Order: sequence, then C-alpha cells, then structure tokens
Amino acid sequence: MLEPHSNIHFGAESFAKFRDATMQNEIAILCDSHTVEHCLPVLLKDFSHLNNAPVLVIPEGEANKNLDQVSKVYEELLRLNLVRNSVLLNLGGGVITDLGGFAASTFKRGIQYINIPTTLMGMVDAAIGGKTAVNVNLFRNIAGVFAQPLSVFIFPKFLETLSKVEIQSGWAEMMKHALLTSGQAWEAFQQYDTLQSPPDALIEANARFKESVVNSDFHDQNRRQILNLGHTTAHALESWNLQQNLEIPHGFAVAAGIFIEAELAMRIGTGLSSGECREIQQYISTQFPKVIIEENSVDKIISLMRNDKKNKQQITFSLLESIGMPLIGIEPDEAYIRAAILHYLHA
Amino acid sequence: MLEPHSNIHFGAESFAKFRDATMQNEIAILCDSHTVEHCLPVLLKDFSHLNNAPVLVIPEGEANKNLDQVSKVYEELLRLNLVRNSVLLNLGGGVITDLGGFAASTFKRGIQYINIPTTLMGMVDAAIGGKTAVNVNLFRNIAGVFAQPLSVFIFPKFLETLSKVEIQSGWAEMMKHALLTSGQAWEAFQQYDTLQSPPDALIEANARFKESVVNSDFHDQNRRQILNLGHTTAHALESWNLQQNLEIPHGFAVAAGIFIEAELAMRIGTGLSSGECREIQQYISTQFPKVIIEENSVDKIISLMRNDKKNKQQITFSLLESIGMPLIGIEPDEAYIRAAILHYLHA
Repeated sequence: MLEPHSNIHFGAESFAKFRDATMQNEIAILCDSHTVEHCLPVLLKDFSHLNNAPVLVIPEGEANKNLDQVSKVYEELLRLNLVRNSVLLNLGGGVITDLGGFAASTFKRGIQYINIPTTLMGMVDAAIGGKTAVNVNLFRNIAGVFAQPLSVFIFPKFLETLSKVEIQSGWAEMMKHALLTSGQAWEAFQQYDTLQSPPDALIEANARFKESVVNSDFHDQNRRQILNLGHTTAHALESWNLQQNLEIPHGFAVAAGIFIEAELAMRIGTGLSSGECREIQQYISTQFPKVIIEENSVDKIISLMRNDKKNKQQITFSLLESIGMPLIGIEPDEAYIRAAILHYLHA
Repeated sequence: MLEPHSNIHFGAESFAKFRDATMQNEIAILCDSHTVEHCLPVLLKDFSHLNNAPVLVIPEGEANKNLDQVSKVYEELLRLNLVRNSVLLNLGGGVITDLGGFAASTFKRGIQYINIPTTLMGMVDAAIGGKTAVNVNLFRNIAGVFAQPLSVFIFPKFLETLSKVEIQSGWAEMMKHALLTSGQAWEAFQQYDTLQSPPDALIEANARFKESVVNSDFHDQNRRQILNLGHTTAHALESWNLQQNLEIPHGFAVAAGIFIEAELAMRIGTGLSSGECREIQQYISTQFPKVIIEENSVDKIISLMRNDKKNKQQITFSLLESIGMPLIGIEPDEAYIRAAILHYLHA
C-alpha cells in the first residue's frame, strides 16, 4: 500500500540520498538522444561512481514513445544480464520517464526504476505518480501500468539545459496546479514570468502538490482525476497532431485544453462564472502560443476524445466549479464540446 | 491485497457464477486460431448471451506470444472503444491466458480479465496465479506483470477438444505438484494413465494446490518459487527450440527439466537420495517423450539459463531435498548443471 513518506528528493539532502540509492543497486541509465548529450555529462560530473554504468539511448521525441523502443530497452537489459534487483535510472523528460517506467515495470515482471526529470514538465508533473505508459499506433498512453518509482530526484540545475519553449511548457502544468488549489494560488501564480525558470521553492511546492494528490488516490479512481483538468482536450490535440507527424509541446496542448475546458465548464453551467472563465482564457492567450486547429478537424478531435482512458461510456472531463474547486466525472453533450473548441479556434 | 476467498470456479456452481460475471460487464473474447474454431462454439452453446460479444483472434502457437500480437489486441480493444470497466475473456491455453492477461493488465493501465483455460496445462497451472507475460525476441516471458484475473473458470469438457499430446503435457505439471506435495501424493500420482484426461476431482485439487501456493506469495519472493521445479531447465530448452523455429509442448520440457534437476539435486547433495532420483527419472523416461538435445547445444542452453527471470547473479534452481520437500534459491556450479544435462541426453 501507499507509504506515508515521500519518495521525492529535492535540495540539499538529495545528493547524499541519490549516492546511497545508486550505490546499493546495479544501475542502467536510460537516456534519449538529447539527454545523453546534454544531461548525462552534468549527472556524471557530480556522481562519478556512475561513470561505468551502462547507458541505453532511445531517439528523442513523443513519436518514439512506443512498443518498438520498449522492446529495444528489454533487449539491452537482457544483453546486460540485468536481474530483478537491478534499477533503471530514467534521465529525461516525460517520454523517458513514461517509457522507462513502463519498460522497467514490465521487464521480467518488474524491476525498480528511479526518475531524474530533466525538464520542468517532468519535475512538477510527469516524473511523479507512477503512471507509466507508451503510445500505440499514435494513440497516446494506451499501454501502461501503475507502478511507483523507487524515488524521484529533482535537480533544478537541469533546467539550464532547456529551451524557452520547454520552460514555458512546464509552466502550463503549474498553472493547472494553481487553478486546482485556490483563488489565492491563482493570483500569486500570475505574477511569475513564464519565460524564466521558476524559483526552486516553487518547483518543490508543485512536485509536492502532485505527490499529495497521487497519494490520496494512486489508482486514479476519484480524487486523482482532478489532475485531468485540460487533459481530455490536450490528449486529443496531441494524438491528432501526432497522426500528422506534428509534435506540439505538451504544455501548449494543456494550456489550449484548459482554455477550451473553461469555456465548456461555463457553457454547461458547472458554476464557473464568465468572469473567472474570461480571466483564465485571457491569461492563456497572452502567455501561451495558440495551438492551430482547423475547423474541419474538430470532428476528428472529438472522436479522439472518445478513446481517452478515463471515459466510461461518454467523453469525460474534469472541470472547474470555480477557481480552486475542481469537479470530476463530467460528461457534457458533444454539442457543447464542439462549441467550446470552436470558441477557441475563433478566439 | 490478497483476498482470502478463491477466484477459481469449478463444477456445478461455475455455470451460474460465469453467467453473472459476464452479464455484469462489457466483454470481449480473446481466442487463438485453434480455440476460435474448436472451443468458442462449445462456450457459446452454453452461454448464448455471449453470442454478440466481439471476438479477437490471434494466430495459435508460442511463437505468436509476442508484443506484435499484444499491439494488435490493443488496436482491437481501441477500435471496440472498450473502457476501463470492460473485461477481456481469455479462451485458450497458456499462450492466450499469458498474452491476454498481459494485454488486459496494460491496456489503458489495466482492465480486468477472466481466464477460461481450454488445455489441461491451463486448468492445473498456466491460467492460475496472475503471472502474465509475452516473449521478446524468442526469450520467454521477458515482458510481463503480476496481475490476478478477476476469475478463472474451469470447464473440464474442453479437454475433449485436446490431442493426446496436450493431455500428456498437462500431466507433467501435475507430476510436479505431486513431487512438491509428499511421498504419498507421488505414489498415488503414478497410478494414473497420462494418456487419459484426469478425473475432475484431480484437476480441481491441482488447481487449488497451485492457487494456495500463489496466495502464500503472490509476487514470487519466496514460497512460490517451489513451483519452479524443473522450470529453469524447461524454459532454457523452450527458448533454445523457439530460436530454431521448433516448438516443444511445455509439459515435455518440464518433464525433461524435472529429470535433469533431479540429477542435479542428487549430484550437488541437496539430500535427494539416488533411489528417489532414479525413481523420478524412470517414471519420466517411460511416461514422457524425450526432448532432443545435441551435445554441442549444451553451452547455449546453459547460457539461456543465465537469462532466467529468477536469477540473482548465478543460475538459480528450485530443487528437491526429498520427494515432498522442496528447496528454493539453489545456485549450483555450472559444471554440475552441464553434467546433469549430459546425463539426460545420454540416458
């Protein structure tokens, strides 16, 4: 069952903890073609005992988060003769922690894994919570298991390896956390510059917020679903782009999703006032690039929503009743969904 | 955590229980190219409410227990728009219950599955215990998770659809259970004709024995490992055959494995007497076809043993201290393993 203590390590204590965790076990490091070049040297500089650890590399990008790459990871783990008490160290963004977590949790019915998120998105969200997954034929996260990492180590210095787009993308999940927390958190959040790295304390607060929600409902039966705010829409937008060989940063899809789902909440009458809705939408319009949606793609996007994992029979959303007051399990008529998407693309 | 009640249904009560379980949920049926023809009609005759359930079919045989077929199952489940509260009904032998269990347990991070074993091997062993898995590049069961089925329904009439070889193969796991239980069980076991279907009560007793061992140690940390008797060797023999596009019935590999591992136990001095060892070996020689091993393949077979999931650093066996007294975690020198294999191929 869930342990009461945190498995997220941050700040001063984390270096010694990481050294302990990685010295006790046989380690293999999983990178993508970007992190092997830009992040692995940074890690090895501080932790030279890992210099001889085998390194597995998959090509970067969401399009490689698939079973073929998982299969290649299995083959490497086999070749290395790794056994059940080995640990896979996932060094990268969401693609690496999602795929590496899935590969580890299914290799020989499960070896342990440690996440070291290298993106802001990873530090405040993707690396935390044990939702491992890969895409199947461009449908997002269709193959996966719930399996907690042994630990998550957050080293903010990896933020220096990121582009402005990746920083901005990470802020979108932090925006979601603020909207789920309180009006006060949302007011405070809007003061930050989303083109800059957040202060360390804010990163930690966001990681801890995610962890606390996960710990209240690891298997995503109820409370954890509040984290889906913006995501029913975001996942459909991402699947639709992926099918056309386009990749949009996850955070930009989430920002568009929160915009559209604020509209949806207001229109179906969850309680979200038009004032709150417009305030959220105005913030998103000024802070995040717009995701291009063509009018004749809207039906396809709605049909992709029907394949979302969280659905029972109808398309299901997590929406706001007001800022700081999330609702789960909302199943609006598709006419409202269509209208909300059209509102975004004409905004 | 583990529930105290059994999820295996057998005999008179099982028809009503099955009807209940499959009427409450949205069902898809997974078959292979053999069971769709020979077993599905038998099932539908008794349970006509399943006439309209969608049927997924994969090609039969161990060589198809792979991620490509899992991927096709995911695609079908997606196309059917199945959601988290759907149930996959696995109708078949070990390949179907292993692969179907894995596909279900990883589809959208897990839907429920029900096993209906159609082989004797499935009824007394493979369908029970929640070890789901598929092969990766001809290495057996490399991708998998521990995930219990919602229920297992044992309908002995499916035995009528089996060949003599499949019946005989199933008896090998029952032989293992007898050897693990007691000298008395082993004496009683030897009275049966392994070319005939066992009596219903013996099937049920074997299914319950497997279940009780599994329930004592679901994650295979200690006691469950007694069930590996014969299997370190059997898995290597099967992997080696699979790599040459040969498929041997699992039970024949297990019988050869128990023969070889009895020799190994005697030679390293676990306590197994030469009298017990010879009695086991003589029984196997008269009751099961011999698995062909060429002398120049022995090194390759030992190297395949090193990749077994249960290993820590060395090749690990579960052996007998005497009949009815299993030992786990034995790591013999490879010279003994070689000698035991050579003894079998020259026997």
